[in-house]
Amino acid sequence: MNRKLKLVVIGGGSSYTPELIEGIIKKRKELPITELILVDVIDGEEKLKINYDLVKRMFKKENIDIDFTYSLDRKEALKGADFVLTQFRVGGFKSRILDEEIPLKYGFIGQETTGAGGFAKALRTIPVIIDICKDMEEVAKNAWLINFTNPAGIITEAINKYTNVKAIGVCNVPINMRYDVANQLGISLEKIRVQFVGLNHLSFISKVIVDGKNIIEKILFANKNNENIVKNIEKIDDIDIINQKIGLISSPYLQYFYFPQKMINKELENINSGKGTRGTQVAAIEKKLFEKYKDPNLNVKPKELEERGGARYSEIAINVIDSIYNNKNKEFVVNTINNGTFVELPNNVSIETNCIINNEGARPINSGKLPKSVAPLIKQVKAYEEYTIEAAVEGNKRKAYLALFNNPLVNNKEKIEELLNEIIIKNKKYLPNFLD
Amino acid sequence: MNRKLKLVVIGGGSSYTPELIEGIIKKRKELPITELILVDVIDGEEKLKINYDLVKRMFKKENIDIDFTYSLDRKEALKGADFVLTQFRVGGFKSRILDEEIPLKYGFIGQETTGAGGFAKALRTIPVIIDICKDMEEVAKNAWLINFTNPAGIITEAINKYTNVKAIGVCNVPINMRYDVANQLGISLEKIRVQFVGLNHLSFISKVIVDGKNIIEKILFANKNNENIVKNIEKIDDIDIINQKIGLISSPYLQYFYFPQKMINKELENINSGKGTRGTQVAAIEKKLFEKYKDPNLNVKPKELEERGGARYSEIAINVIDSIYNNKNKEFVVNTINNGTFVELPNNVSIETNCIINNEGARPINSGKLPKSVAPLIKQVKAYEEYTIEAAVEGNKRKAYLALFNNPLVNNKEKIEELLNEIIIKNKKYLPNFLD
Amino acid sequence: MNRKLKLVVIGGGSSYTPELIEGIIKKRKELPITELILVDVIDGEEKLKINYDLVKRMFKKENIDIDFTYSLDRKEALKGADFVLTQFRVGGFKSRILDEEIPLKYGFIGQETTGAGGFAKALRTIPVIIDICKDMEEVAKNAWLINFTNPAGIITEAINKYTNVKAIGVCNVPINMRYDVANQLGISLEKIRVQFVGLNHLSFISKVIVDGKNIIEKILFANKNNENIVKNIEKIDDIDIINQKIGLISSPYLQYFYFPQKMINKELENINSGKGTRGTQVAAIEKKLFEKYKDPNLNVKPKELEERGGARYSEIAINVIDSIYNNKNKEFVVNTINNGTFVELPNNVSIETNCIINNEGARPINSGKLPKSVAPLIKQVKAYEEYTIEAAVEGNKRKAYLALFNNPLVNNKEKIEELLNEIIIKNKKYLPNFLD
Amino acid sequence: MNRKLKLVVIGGGSSYTPELIEGIIKKRKELPITELILVDVIDGEEKLKINYDLVKRMFKKENIDIDFTYSLDRKEALKGADFVLTQFRVGGFKSRILDEEIPLKYGFIGQETTGAGGFAKALRTIPVIIDICKDMEEVAKNAWLINFTNPAGIITEAINKYTNVKAIGVCNVPINMRYDVANQLGISLEKIRVQFVGLNHLSFISKVIVDGKNIIEKILFANKNNENIVKNIEKIDDIDIINQKIGLISSPYLQYFYFPQKMINKELENINSGKGTRGTQVAAIEKKLFEKYKDPNLNVKPKELEERGGARYSEIAINVIDSIYNNKNKEFVVNTINNGTFVELPNNVSIETNCIINNEGARPINSGKLPKSVAPLIKQVKAYEEYTIEAAVEGNKRKAYLALFNNPLVNNKEKIEELLNEIIIKNKKYLPNFLD
Repeated sequence: MNRKLKLVVIGGGSSYTPELIEGIIKKRKELPITELILVDVIDGEEKLKINYDLVKRMFKKENIDIDFTYSLDRKEALKGADFVLTQFRVGGFKSRILDEEIPLKYGFIGQETTGAGGFAKALRTIPVIIDICKDMEEVAKNAWLINFTNPAGIITEAINKYTNVKAIGVCNVPINMRYDVANQLGISLEKIRVQFVGLNHLSFISKVIVDGKNIIEKILFANKNNENIVKNIEKIDDIDIINQKIGLISSPYLQYFYFPQKMINKELENINSGKGTRGTQVAAIEKKLFEKYKDPNLNVKPKELEERGGARYSEIAINVIDSIYNNKNKEFVVNTINNGTFVELPNNVSIETNCIINNEGARPINSGKLPKSVAPLIKQVKAYEEYTIEAAVEGNKRKAYLALFNNPLVNNKEKIEELLNEIIIKNKKYLPNFLD
Repeated sequence: MNRKLKLVVIGGGSSYTPELIEGIIKKRKELPITELILVDVIDGEEKLKINYDLVKRMFKKENIDIDFTYSLDRKEALKGADFVLTQFRVGGFKSRILDEEIPLKYGFIGQETTGAGGFAKALRTIPVIIDICKDMEEVAKNAWLINFTNPAGIITEAINKYTNVKAIGVCNVPINMRYDVANQLGISLEKIRVQFVGLNHLSFISKVIVDGKNIIEKILFANKNNENIVKNIEKIDDIDIINQKIGLISSPYLQYFYFPQKMINKELENINSGKGTRGTQVAAIEKKLFEKYKDPNLNVKPKELEERGGARYSEIAINVIDSIYNNKNKEFVVNTINNGTFVELPNNVSIETNCIINNEGARPINSGKLPKSVAPLIKQVKAYEEYTIEAAVEGNKRKAYLALFNNPLVNNKEKIEELLNEIIIKNKKYLPNFLD
Repeated sequence: MNRKLKLVVIGGGSSYTPELIEGIIKKRKELPITELILVDVIDGEEKLKINYDLVKRMFKKENIDIDFTYSLDRKEALKGADFVLTQFRVGGFKSRILDEEIPLKYGFIGQETTGAGGFAKALRTIPVIIDICKDMEEVAKNAWLINFTNPAGIITEAINKYTNVKAIGVCNVPINMRYDVANQLGISLEKIRVQFVGLNHLSFISKVIVDGKNIIEKILFANKNNENIVKNIEKIDDIDIINQKIGLISSPYLQYFYFPQKMINKELENINSGKGTRGTQVAAIEKKLFEKYKDPNLNVKPKELEERGGARYSEIAINVIDSIYNNKNKEFVVNTINNGTFVELPNNVSIETNCIINNEGARPINSGKLPKSVAPLIKQVKAYEEYTIEAAVEGNKRKAYLALFNNPLVNNKEKIEELLNEIIIKNKKYLPNFLD
Repeated sequence: MNRKLKLVVIGGGSSYTPELIEGIIKKRKELPITELILVDVIDGEEKLKINYDLVKRMFKKENIDIDFTYSLDRKEALKGADFVLTQFRVGGFKSRILDEEIPLKYGFIGQETTGAGGFAKALRTIPVIIDICKDMEEVAKNAWLINFTNPAGIITEAINKYTNVKAIGVCNVPINMRYDVANQLGISLEKIRVQFVGLNHLSFISKVIVDGKNIIEKILFANKNNENIVKNIEKIDDIDIINQKIGLISSPYLQYFYFPQKMINKELENINSGKGTRGTQVAAIEKKLFEKYKDPNLNVKPKELEERGGARYSEIAINVIDSIYNNKNKEFVVNTINNGTFVELPNNVSIETNCIINNEGARPINSGKLPKSVAPLIKQVKAYEEYTIEAAVEGNKRKAYLALFNNPLVNNKEKIEELLNEIIIKNKKYLPNFLD
């Protein structure tokens, strides 16, 4: 029964690592990892070591005996991996803050995963993820790649279009939305099934099933007093009316599309008040977190990590690995390739929907047509995503332009060219394809 | 914990009933049926009583205490049902034998579920199943209908198109094909996953998954010495070459489409040799079975039933009910509505494919496009099926003609009109819609 | 050769009427109209009479002998019509100015054919056009309806979805764009073929064919010094860059979608400077025009009409009628039903594209897939249009909300409900379906 | 006005050549050909010379002065061509007779354009047409290829899929069917418009338009006493009933699909009676024709050519060239690329339908969905055609198998492998790709 199970974490220096490790510890009976390597780039070495030491203490506390190391040599580390988990951030917080600030100058939303900011992050990230996959094709060709790096949908699609690696994209938004629905109903998570349709950070709950009946209307028209369900986004209240009209529960990220001016104003307010962008805030949180992590007496995930956002990331990531490894055929909401699931979208693009996960990977469950009221938005954003991926891989400026041209958060199209130039110049270190 | 669970079996006089009851007995822990009614029409009363008495003895032997009755009053029996199982045969064996003999006169295959014979059976059966559903809409509107009556795909589609009843069509062919694959590989059933695509009695295994890998090529090119896997059809050996070329394992029913002349010759041989059609043979088997059933000492399903065909019908039917009732989210191959699963087929037609079954019913798992090599055949037969349903419901002779015109087993189209007239005349008792 | 040819013009009191009559006069050899009736509503009676008198003088000047009358009794006038031309405006300029002003209050573009303004106009117009069609179904069921009333695409689609009238929607934008291309190339109109794709007021030139070659790139990258090609819209210069990137020549109406903020600012400037909205300006032009029309010495179309916008409306309308009447099989760009022409759009919606026009009506010529770069925008606007039509016909506020929700010119969705309420209240006289 | 116009005829030794020349002579005003070359292979040299001499006499009679030659050097001849007309037959009558005889041995129809015979012809012809196109890409890259060689649909598709040559496939069946309809109605050809849908030799008239009304029902239910409309196929009378049921006028070639057994019996009868296959008969006719052609006094197309089949081939071919050359925008039924015209078929396949022909080539006119009753047959045959083209280009035996597997005229699939082997062996001289 000593079946080998090697997990490699790329972006091991991330502040999320203790959350991930906590998940690994909880699941250790079913998922007996035999080797674990935290990998990062040279710029992340310091954080990587802090994490390494903390994780060692966490394992020690639980008497867990795993072959555990860290490495700056990615390809070497990947050798013979069974699962590869990616949680890296190209350019770190510095780049994220640029992603948030540059679009604002042109009157657009600055956000790390969506709009022109998410576009810049995608341009930086796609070449790196493809490099990782090329390594995997050579030294770990049977491994599964579980990707948490944003924009997770775009990344999953780029992997599928340009490499042979088996990949699943995970995001903590759907699981948090499901918890939120359960809380509102006062029912345990197991007793409800929640159907998701759409794309990463552009997803919708189309059904809430309890006892075989769809009771979504009950939630849509309930008197609510919701808290934030996704830490990264502040809630603007009018979304409930929209949800009632469209008959769907929108992901909080839809607020960028529904209330662009309010969201921009909120951002500007934060900047003007000295709070800074979300990235600035999170960078400060992280700094404190790593101070905490250094504490030689700390041997559990610190509570403070929860402020960070990304809650339940580990829950979804570890469960997906478990369901693959143990062929459990469990249902999760992940990012995978469309392959005809939503007939309105091309076959080879990524979608975020309920899938059965087993040792074959993620098989989407059919849920019919996209909801009519939001289908055009989904198709529009998918067109943006497809152009973005091609632009990133080919270093094609015209396609980069067309990506932004098709992004609904970049209205006032006369500004695209200038915006795009600034993005390319400010990110030039990470955009080798765009060198002229 | 005394949750009510009422099951009504329509066609309770069928010789399959002891098989079904055996399944119920085995599953009684998980599926604690509180009320069971066997229903049949007046012509089936004698068999119904024989079955009733045998089942009583079977229950007694196992010390099972269920509120168990039989009835000729269908609507009364359906009141408050949780599950309705349909296994009736309109017109009995007499009609089946006509379905087998009439097409042969015109040079076509005579078979009870496919070709012109299956067409005649569909015409007789559709009005009855719709009547049953109308009763259910009135007196058992939350009940699930599990249909085993053939042609199961057409029946499932007719229910969906013309009634509000929640229905799943079951067939024992896929489960038998899965057992057959497992046997060939010498692996237990649980360790393989088999992907089905297509329509009822026109289905194909497109993948055989073991340890996360598709090993269908291994089976296709193995040296084989297969037995019959479906009792109702004798095997013609050339199918292995076809399976290799198309890269799929064809259901045995595909032999009618691949080798029409050989299959006709086989039928003619049986008739000329005095063996009679399959229906004639089965009628004889049934006669003996019911003699057996009458034996007051018999209190188990008799071995002889296995010769009858329909093996594992109860296994699939009871498992589907269990997975709905207990919200088990298990994967089975059943007939359900396409709803975009196979993008090449209309949304509102029935398909036979792998589904996740829970208290919401059957949700098809996405498996991509139909295999290119057989997609045209599937589309052709689906067109036949759609015309057949409309013809039956509307009593429309032109659509009946077009159904046969689109049936690949009815080539030589100049004979359709005469054939159709004979079918309508010989079945007129059961085709009230076609009265002129 | 005395074939009857009766033309009924609904909205006969429009200031466009002399332009139309000029067209009729020019085409009189090929299109020998025998009866002409100008129809309008009671509110338009004064203008109707002025037009009637002017037209009489125009006919007299040309020695044309037509049975020519005017009428306020629409149904009576329609009896036995061969062609019906609709050019009416429900609510007149007062409503148009509201359409332009209301959206601006909420930060959106106010325009009579597109955005929230065009939406309001559609709500007012759809019930009227359907009424006209109901009359035609009774008293002129073989007549062709040639519609110029905006929003012409939506109107064409509503007619097709809810009536049996044969209709073609005409717009002067495509013909003007074609002239503009010819001018830029310095080639005569007959020597170029211009392919249009898209929807009314959302159309694109995808090919410019000269000598069998597509030379659109030449135009896209030419040094240009264009004038306004559509009088109703002032040109914002950045559109050339966009056209180069998308490889298409955009209709001037696309500027609303490309430069929403600039277009809003332009509108606000006009209002603040006292010039007023375009509607206010046109109302003033019209006032002067009708003063002119009254001049008993005027017996030709006055030059001043050209300032009005709508240039070449008569050219396209009369040519379409001629091509139908004389079965000429000529190619024009009109609004007709998609019927599979653009596979990305539903079958039963209206499109604006090149059609062969003969006595069967308009048959679209296949030009392949919608251009990838603008397909999502086209699909989005079409979704808006479909919701608008259903809302208007059903008086359905939820669908009206979803129409605006899907309109890209109505971003900042939190304002939709208030905006919609104001639109309904201010237009209540014309929205009988929305009475509560 | 001395615009050059060079026409190259490949297969210049065909007995059709005088028919073609007659067409050229009639059209000489509009289509002033300046250079004409008849090209053939060495095996056809004798016939080529006979034709050359006859054509010279035909030109002389009409005082036509064209630069006229013949050549065995195809590439040299093609240099600078404006139009290339292909009417060659790979393997000549010997191969045709094999195509007719081999399938019969296995119980299938033997026909030169459809079924297993047409398949063999396609395998032989595709490599040659691609070679011709490769030559054209080098020495006549602006030329139009007008192809008459069968199977014309498959050939058009292969050219489009594997070369950059602009091609249009012509067939005389649609024009003959249109004449037939006109005759039945007693109306002149110009006054009716006939809509064709489908594939080459698998086409249907879906509408017959007179005075803007579809009167197809009138023809379908008329009392008829039809003659053969296509000389190559003898009429079996039951097709009228089928046409009534499907609401379409079927091409005579559909008889192979409707009445396969009767058609086989007819063929066998002809062979057994000593008449021989159609190929044998035509070979004899041809022999006599060439005797005639040799007559130095003959200087017109001899009447006897009409027995040959292929009537009006020259009418369609010359009209298509004229409409391209003179940018006439006339409507003809030709074979072109689908490009979304029939949404049920792939974009890149050939179809046969009404097109507007001008200097851009053939633009299909949209006519909506394929008729439901025959759509499955069309899709099935298209699948056969796609496999055939891939098999021919790749020399792929599995795809060749799947082509025949998908051909409805090759039922009884157990015989495919043997049949295919015989086809490959007997044609090996012409199937270099299939050499092992």
